[in-house]
Amino acid sequence: MEINGVVIDDTYAEAFPAWISELIITAANRYLAQEAAEHATGFASSVIGGGVEAGIDRYLSPRKSPDGRPGCMVLMAHPDKKLLQDQIIQRIAECVLTAPTTAIFNGLPNATEKIPVKLHFFGDGYEYRTKVGDRTVWAIPIMGGEFIIEEQIGCIEGIAGGNFLIMGTDQMSTLTAAQAAVEVVNELEGAATSFPGGVTGSGSKIGSKKYKFMKASTNDAFCPTIKQKNPNSLVPDGVKAIFEIVIDGISEEAVKQAMADGIRAACRMIGVTHISAGHYGGTLGPYKFKLHEILS
Amino acid sequence: MEINGVVIDDTYAEAFPAWISELIITAANRYLAQEAAEHATGFASSVIGGGVEAGIDRYLSPRKSPDGRPGCMVLMAHPDKKLLQDQIIQRIAECVLTAPTTAIFNGLPNATEKIPVKLHFFGDGYEYRTKVGDRTVWAIPIMGGEFIIEEQIGCIEGIAGGNFLIMGTDQMSTLTAAQAAVEVVNELEGAATSFPGGVTGSGSKIGSKKYKFMKASTNDAFCPTIKQKNPNSLVPDGVKAIFEIVIDGISEEAVKQAMADGIRAACRMIGVTHISAGHYGGTLGPYKFKLHEILS
Amino acid sequence: MEINGVVIDDTYAEAFPAWISELIITAANRYLAQEAAEHATGFASSVIGGGVEAGIDRYLSPRKSPDGRPGCMVLMAHPDKKLLQDQIIQRIAECVLTAPTTAIFNGLPNATEKIPVKLHFFGDGYEYRTKVGDRTVWAIPIMGGEFIIEEQIGCIEGIAGGNFLIMGTDQMSTLTAAQAAVEVVNELEGAATSFPGGVTGSGSKIGSKKYKFMKASTNDAFCPTIKQKNPNSLVPDGVKAIFEIVIDGISEEAVKQAMADGIRAACRMIGVTHISAGHYGGTLGPYKFKLHEILS
Amino acid sequence: MEINGVVIDDTYAEAFPAWISELIITAANRYLAQEAAEHATGFASSVIGGGVEAGIDRYLSPRKSPDGRPGCMVLMAHPDKKLLQDQIIQRIAECVLTAPTTAIFNGLPNATEKIPVKLHFFGDGYEYRTKVGDRTVWAIPIMGGEFIIEEQIGCIEGIAGGNFLIMGTDQMSTLTAAQAAVEVVNELEGAATSFPGGVTGSGSKIGSKKYKFMKASTNDAFCPTIKQKNPNSLVPDGVKAIFEIVIDGISEEAVKQAMADGIRAACRMIGVTHISAGHYGGTLGPYKFKLHEILS
Repeated sequence: MEINGVVIDDTYAEAFPAWISELIITAANRYLAQEAAEHATGFASSVIGGGVEAGIDRYLSPRKSPDGRPGCMVLMAHPDKKLLQDQIIQRIAECVLTAPTTAIFNGLPNATEKIPVKLHFFGDGYEYRTKVGDRTVWAIPIMGGEFIIEEQIGCIEGIAGGNFLIMGTDQMSTLTAAQAAVEVVNELEGAATSFPGGVTGSGSKIGSKKYKFMKASTNDAFCPTIKQKNPNSLVPDGVKAIFEIVIDGISEEAVKQAMADGIRAACRMIGVTHISAGHYGGTLGPYKFKLHEILS
Repeated sequence: MEINGVVIDDTYAEAFPAWISELIITAANRYLAQEAAEHATGFASSVIGGGVEAGIDRYLSPRKSPDGRPGCMVLMAHPDKKLLQDQIIQRIAECVLTAPTTAIFNGLPNATEKIPVKLHFFGDGYEYRTKVGDRTVWAIPIMGGEFIIEEQIGCIEGIAGGNFLIMGTDQMSTLTAAQAAVEVVNELEGAATSFPGGVTGSGSKIGSKKYKFMKASTNDAFCPTIKQKNPNSLVPDGVKAIFEIVIDGISEEAVKQAMADGIRAACRMIGVTHISAGHYGGTLGPYKFKLHEILS
Repeated sequence: MEINGVVIDDTYAEAFPAWISELIITAANRYLAQEAAEHATGFASSVIGGGVEAGIDRYLSPRKSPDGRPGCMVLMAHPDKKLLQDQIIQRIAECVLTAPTTAIFNGLPNATEKIPVKLHFFGDGYEYRTKVGDRTVWAIPIMGGEFIIEEQIGCIEGIAGGNFLIMGTDQMSTLTAAQAAVEVVNELEGAATSFPGGVTGSGSKIGSKKYKFMKASTNDAFCPTIKQKNPNSLVPDGVKAIFEIVIDGISEEAVKQAMADGIRAACRMIGVTHISAGHYGGTLGPYKFKLHEILS
Repeated sequence: MEINGVVIDDTYAEAFPAWISELIITAANRYLAQEAAEHATGFASSVIGGGVEAGIDRYLSPRKSPDGRPGCMVLMAHPDKKLLQDQIIQRIAECVLTAPTTAIFNGLPNATEKIPVKLHFFGDGYEYRTKVGDRTVWAIPIMGGEFIIEEQIGCIEGIAGGNFLIMGTDQMSTLTAAQAAVEVVNELEGAATSFPGGVTGSGSKIGSKKYKFMKASTNDAFCPTIKQKNPNSLVPDGVKAIFEIVIDGISEEAVKQAMADGIRAACRMIGVTHISAGHYGGTLGPYKFKLHEILS
C-alpha cells in the first residue's frame, strides 16, 4: 500500500486499555491556559516514568469553554483508575490551582464514572458552592482571587498506546512531517499525544541484550545510524531518521481517526518514505490498529 | 520604604537550603529546546507534590550553548541529593531523551559535586564516547539519530524558597506586574521559578483551621475576597489580588539579585500598591532575605 | 439591554463596502506559515496608512489546507479593486515569496472575480505549470527549492469597518476581555481584524479641534483620562479603559456573527461594564450593524 | 577556508550605506510588545517593495527598557533620510499608537541626528509633557489610557545589505541552520534582519533574461532544482537548498560581528556544506565584507 508514494507497512499498532479522563483548564487568556495545561501535562510521557500519560487534546476558544474564557482540554490516561485519580488530584493541586486565574471543569460530562477531586477542602471553610452556566462548582478563595473547580471529573474506558512510525530521508524533514501529523491529532477531539511536542525520536524495546539490569533499551532495530553493524536492523534503505507518534484516545474510533489522519498528513510532506507502527506480540495489549485497514 | 510609591513591607522571605543542579538542554531549534525543557520542568512546582522544584533558568543562544544549538538552562532543586538524582534521571529519560533532536550537557561544570546519570546503558552496547568541544559525552543511537549526553551533572548547595508577594488594585494589573518580575528573573543567571509561568496566585498555610485532615490550606490571611469576613486578614485596604513569585537559586547572591530586580520591575508597573514576602517563623528554613536590605 | 450585567448601548457600528480577497499561505510548519502571514499582514491597520487592511482570518491545519501543510487564511480588504490587487502582489512578492518554504493558494475558489498575480515571471523561464490536488499552480525555482503559487486569487464584495467598543474598570481587565473577543473572531471563518493583536486602544475622530492641519486626532469623547476636563466626554462613570475591535469580513453575515460572538465573549470577562460601537453619521459608509439586533 | 568541515567561499558580501534609526517599543507584557514590533516591521523586507527595511534588533527585558516594561528594539533602514522619516512616522501611527498599552522611546539616544515624529498633535490639545526617568516624553490621551512617546528618534549613518548564503544537503536542515544564525543575530546589539523570520529562500538577480519587462527575477545561478538545465549554475554538487540572511546594522562593526557569529552558528549545524555571500560588482554599494577576513 502506498500514499503519495510513501510505503505503508502491512503491520499494526498494538495498544492497551486505559482509563481516560479529560479536564478543561480555562484562564484569563490563552497563554495562561496553555501554561497551566503544559505544566499539568509535563513529565507525563509514560505511565511508568511519569506516573500518567497526559497531553493537551485540543484548544478551546472562549465560545467553546464552560466559563467563556480561553481553555485547553487536557487528557490523562492510566490503566489503573485509582492511580489515575491520584495523578489528577496531584497535578491539579500542583499545576492548575497554583497557576494564575485558572479554573477546572469536567471535560467528559456524559461519562457515568466520575473521579472525585475534593480540592474544595483547600478553602478551609471559606469555599462555597456556586454555578457556572448549568455546572455546579466550588469557589475557593485564593490570594489571586477565586479558584473555580468542578470537582467530579468524568472518566471512561479508552485506549493508550496507539502509534505510528514516520521514516524519512533526513532528520529535519522527517521531524517536520511528524509535526504536521501532530497538528492534525491536536485538532481532532478525543485524542492526545503525551511526548514533548507530540513526537518522540527515541523508541525503546523491553529489556536489553547487553545490560541485563536494564528494563528497557534503545529500539536498535529501528536506529538508522547503526543499520550497518546491526544484523537485526529493520531500517529500510535510504532511511536516516524515524519518529514515532503515540496516541491516547477516549475510544477506538478516536484513536483510529487520529492515526489515519495523522498518517495522511505525514505522507504529504517531503522526505517521508515509509510509515510503520509498533507492536510487541500482544504483550502490551489486546488492541490492534492495522494500518491498511484504518487507511482504506 | 517605598519604591515608585509602592509600599515595601519591613519583612523577610524565609528560604531553605537545597541541592541545585543545572542541565543544559539543546535541540535543533529554539522551539524544540523549549518544548523539552518545559516538559522536563512540568509538574515540578514543589518538592512535596511534584518530587522536585524545577524551572527554566534562562535561554541560551547558539553562541552560548556547548554544541552551538539553541538551548535552555534548566534548574532543579531538592533538599535531598539522592532524591534530586532520581528526579534528574527520570526527567531526562522521560522528557529529554524522548524529545526530538535534543542533547544534554552539564550546566554547572565547575561544581565539584557531580550527579551521575548513566543513561548510556540505554544504548545497549551501541553507544560510544565522543567529544563536543572539550566535553566528553556519550552518543546513544536512537530512532531519530543520536542522543548526546554528558553524564555527570554538577550539583551545588543552593537555596530554595526565596519569594515575594505582589499586591495590587485588580487581578490583571497585578498579574501583569508579576509577569514583568518573572521576565527579569528569567534573564538573570542562576535563578529560576518553578510555578507555571513563574507566578502563583495560590499560596498556602500549613494545616487547616477547619479540616484537620488537610496538611495545607489556602493562605486565608492573604485572600482578598474574604478580607471582610476573616478577622485575621492581612490584606491591605484596596488590594484585590496578590501574586507570589518563588525563586530557587544557586547561591544567596543569585536569589538576592533575582528578588531585588524582580521587585523593582514589579514596582514600575501600574496597579501595584504593596510588596511583601512569605515567612513561617523559621519552620521552613534558616535563610532570611530582608526586603529592605536587599533593596537598599 | 444587558448581557451578564454588561450594558449594551443602543447604537450601531457603521461600516463600508470593500473588495475582499483571501489567500492561503502554507509552509513546512506552523511557525513558518504564521511568520509569513504576520509579515504579509503587518503595517496594514488601515487603508489610508498601510495601503490595505489585512489580517489572519484563521489558522488552517494540514487537514484543511490545499497542499496538506500547516497554513494561514489571510484576508485583505480595500474599497478599490485595483489598489487591492497592487497590495496583494506587493505583499506576496515581499513577504511570502521571500519567506522560507511557503506556497500561496486562492482562499476564495468560488469567487467569480479574480485578481491575477502573475508572479510566475519571476521564474525567468524556468517556471512550469503543475498540479496540487485539483488546483493548477506555477512552480517557480528559487534558492530554497520551489515556490508554488496559484495565481488567480478570488475577490468578492465584502465589508470593512465592522466594530465594537469594550469598556471596563481598568486597563488590563478590559484588554483581556478584548483579547477573548479576538480569539473568537479568529476562530470564525470569513472575518479578520487588522490591528496589531486584533485590538486597538487608540480610536480617532476625523480632523482636530485644535490643530487644523491634522486629518485625524484622538477620539477625545472616549478617552477616560480626560473625562473630567472634556465637556463632550462620553465615557461612562467608572470606565477607565476602552478598547476597539475592528472587523472586516467577506459578507454581512460574517461580520455580524464575528461582532455578536465577539461581544458575547467580552461580556463574560471580569471588569467589563459597557459595550458600544463606532459610527460617523453615515460619512464612513452605508452599513449599520445595530448591536441590539445582532445580539438578539 | 573551512569551519567544522563547511567550505567558506573566498568571496564577499556587498553592502550599501543607509540611514538607520532605532525605536524602543514597550508594552504591558512581552506579547504585546512583540505584537506591536512585528506589525511595525511587517511588509518591510526591502526598501523598494515595502518602503523601508525593518526588523527587531533585540528583545529588551524590563531591566533594560526606559519605562521598566518589556520591550523590543526595532531597527529601520533607508538610504534616504526623508523617506526613512516618513516610514517611521507612518509605522508608529499605524502599528504602535494603535496597539494596546504601547510606548515609544528613542533607541539611539547618543545619535546627534534626530528624526522628529511630532505625533503629539494627535492629542488635539489634551497632550502634555512629562518625564520617564530622565527622558522628556509626550503623554497623549487615547481610549485605552495614555500613549507615551519620545518624539525625537536618533538616526545614524549605518549599513544595509550585509549578507551570507547557507548551502546544504536538504531544505529543512539548511533552514534549521539558517534559523540558528538568526537567533545569534537577534541576540547581538545593533543588527537586524528584515525578512520574515530573518531568512529568505528567494534571492533575486537584477532584470530577467527572458522577460524584458521584469526588473528582477529569480537568482537562477543559485537555484538547486534547475542546476542540471542551467549552464550558468553555481550550485555546488550535493547542495539541495540555499538560504540567505540579510543584515542591516548601525555600523560596519555591528554588521561584521553579526555576519561572523551568524556564519559560525550555521557551520555547527548538520547538513550545511558551503557558505557564500552575495555581491553585484559594486552596483549595489561600496562596502565589501570579505568572508575570510571577518571569520579570521
